[in-house]
Formats: sequence, C-alpha cells, structure tokens
Amino acid sequence: MRQLPLLLPALCLLAATVAPAVHADEGMWQPAQLPDLEVQLKARGLDIEPEDLASLTEHPMGAVVSLGGCTASFVSPEGLVVTNHHCAYGAIQYNSTADNNLLVNGFLAADPAAELPAEPNARIYVTEEIRDVTDEVTAGLDPAMSGVERYDAIDRASKAIVAGCEQPGYRCDVYVFHHGLSFQLVRLLEIRDVRLVYAPKEAIGKFGGDIDNWMWPRHTGDFAFYRAYVAPDGSSAAYDKANVPYQPRHHLKLQPRGVQAGDFVMVTGYPGRTNRYRLAEEVRDAMQWQYPATIDLYQRYIDIVEANPDPAARLKYAGSVAGWNNTLKNFGGQVEGLRRADAVAVKTRGEVELGQWLARDGDSGEQLAAGIESLRGSLAQAREVRERDLLIYTQLGNLGLFRATRDLVRLAIEREQPDAEREYGYQARDEVRIEGNLRQLDRRYDPAIEAALVTELLVRYVALPAGQRIAELDAWLDGASEPAAIAARVAALYQATRLGNADERLRWFGADRAAMEASDDAYLEFMVAFMPAWLRMEEQRKATDGLGYAYRPQYMQAMIDFNRSRGRAIYPDANSSLRVAYGTVTGYSPRDGVLYTPFTTLEGLAAKHTGTDPFDATAAQLAAIAERRLGAWLDPAIGSVPVNFLADLDITGGNSGSPTLNGRGELVGLAFDGNIESVSASWIFEPAITRSIHVDVRYMLWVMATLDNAGHLLEEMGVDER
Amino acid sequence: MRQLPLLLPALCLLAATVAPAVHADEGMWQPAQLPDLEVQLKARGLDIEPEDLASLTEHPMGAVVSLGGCTASFVSPEGLVVTNHHCAYGAIQYNSTADNNLLVNGFLAADPAAELPAEPNARIYVTEEIRDVTDEVTAGLDPAMSGVERYDAIDRASKAIVAGCEQPGYRCDVYVFHHGLSFQLVRLLEIRDVRLVYAPKEAIGKFGGDIDNWMWPRHTGDFAFYRAYVAPDGSSAAYDKANVPYQPRHHLKLQPRGVQAGDFVMVTGYPGRTNRYRLAEEVRDAMQWQYPATIDLYQRYIDIVEANPDPAARLKYAGSVAGWNNTLKNFGGQVEGLRRADAVAVKTRGEVELGQWLARDGDSGEQLAAGIESLRGSLAQAREVRERDLLIYTQLGNLGLFRATRDLVRLAIEREQPDAEREYGYQARDEVRIEGNLRQLDRRYDPAIEAALVTELLVRYVALPAGQRIAELDAWLDGASEPAAIAARVAALYQATRLGNADERLRWFGADRAAMEASDDAYLEFMVAFMPAWLRMEEQRKATDGLGYAYRPQYMQAMIDFNRSRGRAIYPDANSSLRVAYGTVTGYSPRDGVLYTPFTTLEGLAAKHTGTDPFDATAAQLAAIAERRLGAWLDPAIGSVPVNFLADLDITGGNSGSPTLNGRGELVGLAFDGNIESVSASWIFEPAITRSIHVDVRYMLWVMATLDNAGHLLEEMGVDER
Repeated sequence: MRQLPLLLPALCLLAATVAPAVHADEGMWQPAQLPDLEVQLKARGLDIEPEDLASLTEHPMGAVVSLGGCTASFVSPEGLVVTNHHCAYGAIQYNSTADNNLLVNGFLAADPAAELPAEPNARIYVTEEIRDVTDEVTAGLDPAMSGVERYDAIDRASKAIVAGCEQPGYRCDVYVFHHGLSFQLVRLLEIRDVRLVYAPKEAIGKFGGDIDNWMWPRHTGDFAFYRAYVAPDGSSAAYDKANVPYQPRHHLKLQPRGVQAGDFVMVTGYPGRTNRYRLAEEVRDAMQWQYPATIDLYQRYIDIVEANPDPAARLKYAGSVAGWNNTLKNFGGQVEGLRRADAVAVKTRGEVELGQWLARDGDSGEQLAAGIESLRGSLAQAREVRERDLLIYTQLGNLGLFRATRDLVRLAIEREQPDAEREYGYQARDEVRIEGNLRQLDRRYDPAIEAALVTELLVRYVALPAGQRIAELDAWLDGASEPAAIAARVAALYQATRLGNADERLRWFGADRAAMEASDDAYLEFMVAFMPAWLRMEEQRKATDGLGYAYRPQYMQAMIDFNRSRGRAIYPDANSSLRVAYGTVTGYSPRDGVLYTPFTTLEGLAAKHTGTDPFDATAAQLAAIAERRLGAWLDPAIGSVPVNFLADLDITGGNSGSPTLNGRGELVGLAFDGNIESVSASWIFEPAITRSIHVDVRYMLWVMATLDNAGHLLEEMGVDER
Repeated sequence: MRQLPLLLPALCLLAATVAPAVHADEGMWQPAQLPDLEVQLKARGLDIEPEDLASLTEHPMGAVVSLGGCTASFVSPEGLVVTNHHCAYGAIQYNSTADNNLLVNGFLAADPAAELPAEPNARIYVTEEIRDVTDEVTAGLDPAMSGVERYDAIDRASKAIVAGCEQPGYRCDVYVFHHGLSFQLVRLLEIRDVRLVYAPKEAIGKFGGDIDNWMWPRHTGDFAFYRAYVAPDGSSAAYDKANVPYQPRHHLKLQPRGVQAGDFVMVTGYPGRTNRYRLAEEVRDAMQWQYPATIDLYQRYIDIVEANPDPAARLKYAGSVAGWNNTLKNFGGQVEGLRRADAVAVKTRGEVELGQWLARDGDSGEQLAAGIESLRGSLAQAREVRERDLLIYTQLGNLGLFRATRDLVRLAIEREQPDAEREYGYQARDEVRIEGNLRQLDRRYDPAIEAALVTELLVRYVALPAGQRIAELDAWLDGASEPAAIAARVAALYQATRLGNADERLRWFGADRAAMEASDDAYLEFMVAFMPAWLRMEEQRKATDGLGYAYRPQYMQAMIDFNRSRGRAIYPDANSSLRVAYGTVTGYSPRDGVLYTPFTTLEGLAAKHTGTDPFDATAAQLAAIAERRLGAWLDPAIGSVPVNFLADLDITGGNSGSPTLNGRGELVGLAFDGNIESVSASWIFEPAITRSIHVDVRYMLWVMATLDNAGHLLEEMGVDER
C-alpha cells in the first residue's frame, strides 16, 4: 500500500460531516473504545478480553510500533521487529552496493554482529503515553475569533504542549481527533539505531510489483525484519557499534498455524488519514473535480517526461513517473469506487437524516444547522480558487527546484522568529530534512523537464478568471499568455539560475533573509518577489482550516450523539495514531460472475511466474513449489502453503506492516495492501467489497525456513519448524 | 464465437495423432455414438434415452439445422428458427437503411407479412441423411499411389458421389471423418427463402462487443429469430412473396425455467474444425511458429493500416483490422493455453503410450511405426516451406485484389474442364460467390494500403533461403531486394492495373483463358505469369494431404483400438457435421484466488453499463432492471434473471447458435462463445477450465416480453408468460 500524496491540502486538518452508517467491520478504533465494542468483538471471535487491547503499554498493543508512515511490531524479547518489505525498502536500498544489490539478492544477517544500520533517518517509535489535552489546547479559543486567529491559537497552544513534553529520546505530538473535537498528546520513545536483520529477495518481497499493487489475487512476500538498538544504559541513541538490542516490554508471538477462512482477525497499527466524515459536496468536489483534474494533469506530466529526447533526463523522473502512475491508478479507482458506491447520494441521505434528528432538538439544532451553512460557505469560498490552488499551491509548489528555492526563502523568513513560533515544517527539527532535500534534488531534477512542467501549469493558470489570478505571478509573466511566450520565459528562468547546482543551493541554506533579497540569482529573485503571494495562499488555507476547527467539532459531536441514540459508536477519522481494526478472513465478489477466494497459494505464485520482472520467481522457489517441499506450513484445507489472504477489516495507508492478529492476539500475518475497490474507502467504506490484503505468516515462515536458511530467526521467535 | 480464419491450410483435411485421454465432458460426438455412452450420459443427468438422440430425422436432432458456419434450431411448427444475433448479423445489416439501422434499433415483425428477406446467400440446411460412402470413396485407392494421385482419386470419387446425390433444393457433400478413416455423404435440404423475424437491439445482442469476445463474465443477449419459407408445394425456393412458412417435422420446446448450476446440458450443432488428433510436433509448430509468426505479421498489418494518412482508406480496412485483432486475441490465447496445458509434453506422452501398446502387436505395430515415420517425413517436408507458404500462399493469397485477380485467372483455367472435374471452389456452384466477391471488393480495398501490405510480405519473402524462393516471383521482382525497391515495383503494379475498378473486374468475369493471357492489364499480366507457381503450391498441398490420407486413418484406427482396449470411445475431430456435446452447468477457477460463477445476472449487466458502446444498455432496459420488473423469468436461487451461463461441454466455432438442451431435450439456452481458456481447446481439451458460454433462455424471454413486446412469438413457441 503506497503512501499517497496528500490531496486537498487545504483540508488536511479539517473534516467532519454527517457520516455513513457504521457497518460491521468498518472502523479504525481507538484502543480505549474497544471495551465498548465487546459484544461485536466477541461475536466476531475475539478470545481475549477487549480490555486487554485498551492499554497501550500492555500486551499486545505495547508490541506495536510506528516507523513513521508504516507500522511494525516486536516479535522477540531481543528487539526483533517485523514489518513489510516495502517499509524496509529504504534500508535495503541504502545498504546495496554495485557489487551486492540487496534488493535483488536479499539479505540475512547470520548473527547480530552482521546486522546493517538502516538509513540514518530510519526510526522506530514506541507509543508510551496518550493524554487528552483538549482543555489546554482550546482554553484560549473565543467564538469571535477569525479563522486565522483560531488556527494560530490552536497552533500556538499545541506547540507549547509539545515543547513541554519533548525530551531527549522522545518525540511528542498533538494529534487532532474528530477534526478538533478533541486533542491528544502522544509521547513516543524514538529509537534511532535501527538495523536491517533480514529481507527476502525482491523477487519475493516485491513479487508482482506495481502491476499487482492494489490487486487481488496477490502473491507478494511483503515482509522484512529490523532490530531496535539502544545505548547500553537503555536510552535512545544514534547508531553506535556499542549499542545493544532494545528489550521491549512486550513482543508478539507468531502463530505458525495461521488462520482459516471465516476466522476473526484484527490489525493494530497507525493508519494515516481518512475522510469518512465529509460533506456530500466535498465528496462531489473530489470525484467530479479534484481527482479528474489531477488525473488530467498527471497524464500530461507523463507525456512531457516521455517526450523528452534525453534518456538520462527521463531516467531522473522514473520515480516521479511511477508515482504519477500510482496516483492515476489510485484516483481512477477512487472515482470509480465513489461512483459505484453512489457516495454523494449516500452522504446526502446521511445529512438529511442527521438534520431531521437535530431538528427535534430546538435551538441547539438550529444552531448546528446554521453552523453547517457556515462550513458550506467556507468550503464554497475555498472552491472558488480550487483551480489556482491545484495548479500553483499544490502542483507548482511540489516541483523540484521551485520547492527547493521556496524552502530556502521560507526558512530564512521563519528563522527570524523563536523556534517555537516558527511555521510548522520550518522549525529547527525540520532543518535536517530540508537540507537533505536540497542535497538530493539533482537525482530527480532536470531543468528542461521541470521547465516544461512549469510551462504546462502556467499555460493552464493564464486561462483562469481574474478572481484566481495572482498579481505577483502575472507581473512576472509580464503579459505572456501564449504557450510559446510562457515557455520562453520559463526556459530563461531555468537557464539563468545557478541553483540547479547542489553546492550553490547548499551555500544558500541558512543564509538570512536580507542576503536572499539581495541575491541576483534569477530564481531567488523570482521567489523573493513571489513569496508574498505564497504567504497569502498559506493564510487563506489557515483561515479555512480555522473555520473548520470552529464548525466541524460540533458536527462530529452531533454525529456521535446521533449514532449513540441508535446504539452505535463512532470511530475518529484516521490521524496516524494507534488504532485497531477487526473483521474476518473472507473473499468477495468484485463483479457479477466473479468470486475472489480469501487465500492464494504457492501454486498460484508459480503460475504467475513469467521470468520477467515483476513476475520473476527464483528457480529455487519454483523448484521447492514443484517438489511440494511445504514443510510444516502446509494448510490441509487449502492443500498448499497460503501466500496472501483477504480480510474485511478497515485499514488505510500507514497500516502497512501492521501485525494481523488472531482472536488470541497472536501474529498470523502482516497487512500490506488493500484491494483496488478499497481505495475509495478513504471516503466511504463498502463492507461487501472493501478488503485488506495480508501476507500469511505461513508463507513468511516457509520462505525463511525453506528458501532463506533463516532458522535462527525462527528459533529467536520461538517458532518450531516441525 | 467468431469463425476463425483457417490456419495451416496445408493441413486442413489432414489430422490424426495419438490423442489425449478422453475426459468427462470432452467430445463432439456423432449422434450415432451416443447409445455407446449411455452410462456416462445417464450419470450426468440425461433423462431421455440416448437412442432418441441417435436419429437425425427424429426429435430433437431433426430440429437442429445449419446456417453454413452457424447452427440454429426450429422452435415452432411454423418454421420459426432461433440462432445467435451474430449469426443473423448479415441479415440484419442487409435490411438496414440510412434511416433505420436495424443493428441499432433492433427489428420485430409484427406478423409474418412484415418479416424481411435475409441477404440472398442466407441458407438454412436441414440434415436429412447421412450415409457411409467409405467403400465408394476408397475403392480406387492403391498403396502405390503418390500423394497427389491419392488426393485426386479421393477428390474425383467424392465429386462423383456428390453429383449423383444433388438435386434441386438439396445440397450434398462428402465429409471426411477421422481424417480419412471414413467418408460420409451428407444430404441437406437447402432452404433458400430465409426471413428475419426478430432481432434485439445491438445494445443487447452485441452487448460487450469485441471487448467481451471470449470473455467471462458475459452479458450478451446473442439471439435472433429467422423463419424458413418454401414454395407453396413445399419445395425449396428462392425468396418469393407467395412462399409459405416451412413446416419442420420437429421443433424444440423452450423450457422457460431454464437450468440450475450442476444441471445436465447438451449442445447439438455443427462444430467446424478441431485438431485434437495431431502429432506433438504439429502442436509445437503451431505454438512456436505458426501462431507467433501470424501474430507478428498481423501486428504489422494493423500498424500499416493505422499509419495510412487517408481516413477513408483506413475505414475500408476497419473490418480487416477487427478481424486481425480478433485473430491476435485468439492466437495469443492459444499460445498461452498450449503452454499452460504443456500440450507438447502431453501429446508426446500419448505418442509414447500408443507406441508401447502397438509394440505388443508385432508386425502390424511395426508397420504403423513406419507409417508414423512417413507422416513425420511428410510434415517435415511441408515445414521446409512453411515461411513461404504463410507469406505467399496464405497471406498474399488472401489479400483483396490479389485474390480477386487470382480467382479470375484460376476460374478461366478450370472452366476449360467439365464441371465435375473442376477444382474444388471453382465449380459452377461457386461462381455466384466469386462474382459477388469481385463486385464487393471496393468496400474493403484501397490500392495504397494493399500495396503496403504486399510490400511487407515481399520484404519478408526476399529474406527467405533459396529453397523457399519462387522463380516466377523472383523474375517479377527483377532483382529488387531492398524495401524501397520492392515498394516501388508493387506501387507501380497497383497504379497501373485497371482491376481496381469493379466494372473492369466484372468485365473479366467469365472471360476465357486466352483472353486473360492476351490482356495488357498489369495485374492480369502479373497473375498469368505467376499462375504456374500458384498451381505448383496447390499441388504440393495436395501431395501433403494425399500422404495424410494414406497414413492418418491408420493412426486413427490405432487410437480407436487403443482407447477401446481401455474402455473408452473416441469422437472424430469436428468437420462441420452434426454433433452432440454434453456436460454440466458449472463455473471454474481461471487462476489462483479467483472463481467464476456459472451465471451472470441483470444487475451485473447494469453494473457493466458505461454509456459507451459496446457497454451501452438502453434506458428502458436499465429502468426495468432497477425496478426489478423480472416477471416469470426470475430465478429464486440466483435472485435475478440469469443472462448468460457457463457449461463444461465441448464446442467450437460453427456451434454458434446451437440450442443448449436440458436432460429432457428442451431448449434452455443458445451456445454463442467459449471462454478465452477454450481457444486452445481446438488442440487439447482441459476439462478444468474449458467452458462454453450460453445465453440463458430466461434472458431471451425477459428481453422479448419485457423490452421488445414480442409476446406473439412467445405464444407461437407455446411459452406462457406467467
């Protein structure tokens, strides 16, 4: 499951709308909510007590960790961690050399001394505490505040709480729940010495590649192992040879017999973001405008890159093209899914129902109805500049050299303030990341291609009506409105600047605002002149977000009350905090005449083998399958070793690597993807067809025992091979 | 199911090899064989006696007719005939006008007077007699004969038998069974006044179009109705207003309750050709050379047509491009299927088994082993010129103007002989067809495109080794070997000829050989000079075929004996004669993790609707589905009206339109296609995945009753709407 680029940045921190009815197995629940779901959980097949899942510092939740964007879990008392192969991809790549490409060859440390340090920014975060800070965050709020004032007040309060919490070896963040109804401080132990222990060959770990991404049937061995290290005194420390394995308070036990169709399963992890509580008009805007407009643009982007005559230049954009294609597949799936689910109508019906329920509430209901109208007004206002926002703020703002130069200038501005008051993303703790981006730009930047992409955006921009025009940009364009004239101006800019050179960029990193403003570099001159417009766009977003903080929490409260009146609990939208999803191992019917069965098998993997990447299984694997060397991992009901399985539980990006647990809390697999029908589940969950895809623990063990000689890891995890 | 272009013309009349084991449900049985299969048929669920199926002139076989390339059946005492929409396509198109496109609008005759004459060459053939003529055909054969002598002897004897059988209103043909082991004279009543009674709109009859061709899940209403007419005295007659409906001796009864999963079904019809009894080396040649070479060529053909700058010229080849694409899909599926089935290994194992069995037979076994070697020698010889045969005989021989001119010259040569001695395809009875082709060429011919296609073939031809070169063609090329030089010569030929004009072509139709040879038309000069080479290639094919007649029947006899020794019956390869296939309504697993269910539904059809051809259902149909106006055709087990269904019985091209019967011989659907996995079943039947696709009788009735107001036809067929 790929982390998707954030759509609708203006609305990132917002959300709240009358929600869909909560179906069985829908929901990414806060651990503390689980005791309320006891009846459902027991009916589905949970064997342990829901209370056992409610405590973050007890087993099994205490064993579930975040990698920042992915999830993982401890599986031995010596800090062994299992996650997805695609989550450990950076670490595998980082340790690859021309002579030994670990992606291709795989890697297995024969003993702890042979374990390889992951890339420097690799982290393992252990959730140690979650504390409600709603009162502290909202204490200074006032109904009379403007959107920007409200946004800034929340921002200031959150930063102060974080500052008061952080200490060496720990990371703190204030998470927004229910779009501002509550705020919680999360305190994470930050393990900085992460080592690669074992990764199967890419031919296993990435079998099927991008072609099979979001697809079923699936045959991907998407797993890898890290080990967490700390200083000898037990404190968090950067990589050091003298460090020792971290001894987690809890680790998960593998269940080598796996699960069967119909069995209860649950996934504990850190889902990134969902939009389950949006207004019907927001869904309509996404499916009818945002996704199609982005699809249209990315198809042009790809054409532009592919039309470039220089193979070396095209190669620099291979990753970008893969990302755009990935987004095209995802957004296409979302548009199709939202249409299939009739999502706008479903949301609209929900809004009507909620309205009717509130109407019986007299004044308080009227007040909420007025609030909805205010939110609608704010959304309508934001939509008035949606074309400009997409073209300039989101897309231009994300192109390599534009972004690098903007970050240089933006950082210089923020550095004039105390760290705690700096803009989010430009604080001291962000500077390493910004510097790294400046350094690495060359690998994915070509001036001719970026100039062509910028030209494409500006050609679309000049067609916008006056209300969406930006004075600074129009001044720079100096009347150019035909594609050729725009292309000429942009080309001149990219030819004149010296910032295409990494040393030159790094020379400006840390320079102060006055120096920037005095520079004669063409791109810096352009960016200094453009910056006021950029800051205005930022302000507009904050205003929209601030209004969201004013209105959305009330609607979430209404939703919660409304559903409680019908005996239903409401889970918050995903926000990268620790959650639990539960459901059943089960297939589905993707369309009339077709059933997908819940398990795939080794034989199905062999049948997919073509000899060409990404369907290029090794001869050793094919031989083991042909010779039926299945060991203890044979499932008699399936007649083979299960490779991947489907469940109807509710996950999203960020859940990658999450342990899949059976009813006794034992590890039976790892979540690593959703089916294509699930991509629209970010908006609306369709219980009949939304499925998560898991790598089966038996396939992991079969690969380790039969192909990769990793018996010592099985032993460390207490798995008996017989 | 499209009629495929004949592959391997050299081998058309040949075939015979040690065969695959006969699995349950494999087999296109001769009706007379069915009593021998009583145990299997009864076990599967046949309710009537197998003897009832053995007689061609009794019910139900007497109701099953051929349309020449398709199958149909009588369904009322007044000559009403049901077949596939795609089998009636020509008749529907023929009656379409600019104002009323019947393909789009559909057609329903309110009463017999409103029925429309089908295109002039439409025929309904009723099998009246099958008589074994093996002794007559083979009486003059002599072991010492050469291949050509043997071929000619069989050809002469067959023509004499046909001549002695044919009389006005009847057509006779000698069919080759078991590749020459037996010959049977088939006498057909030829009904020439065929009228279109009813065809649903193309949005129903061709729903899914080429995209869904050979695909499951399927939602095609592939059915239409004709009526057979004869002269008032009951004799066969061309269209005449005074003609009356033909009263068949038998007609099928519709079973409006259809079938259920697991039910017995059988298909009676006229399958065209299979290659089930080929040698392993013939399978290898097809999958490793013939199919890939043709795929490579057709991809170039399509590129050439699409690269032509003239839209009007491209349009003329739209049908050709569709045909080439169809072949690409089919041959690609065959290559994949033969690889999947490991067909060469399977055939090789069969040959070894047969060899071992024969080895115990002493002299007779040795004789057969020597015969196999002789056949192999003949096949090896044919393979030596396979590139030339593909490029010149098959492909060049099939291009529009080349073919038309060849037919003119070839016909003039044949006309110098008595009709009975003329070459097959150039007899008096063929002249109407040849004349029609000459007349209609303009619609699908453009000189620039055909010149480019010919150039492509000749560029490949000049790369062939000396042993495959043709002296006459080399002489015409006059040393041209570079593409540009070849293109120039070909372009000059197509510019110089006057035969691009239909009147000019028709002026030459019927001209004698001397006139042709004296012509100064460039293409006629070329063809007259080339004709000796063409005749040599024909002779070489006859020699190969004649050797096949010498050796293959012995192997078929060996196969029959070998299988009989194991208690198994052998069915002959398909040869367009009346056959019965039987099996079960059942889905299958196309690949690991996926099951195809045996029925599709109205709701599935609606879900496929995109509004764009070929997925453009009418508003009326979508409304009827949405409003659940399902009438008497609802299947409670399925919860909807079934649209199409799968069965595991054995059919092929030519079976299109065949009635699908239940165990009591009642019509429950029409066969109209096979799944993509079935295309390789022409060589090897895989019982687990080879499936036939049928339109469900309940969908036919639902469309007629609910959408098309065809209640009077239901009444005529005795179907009660309640």
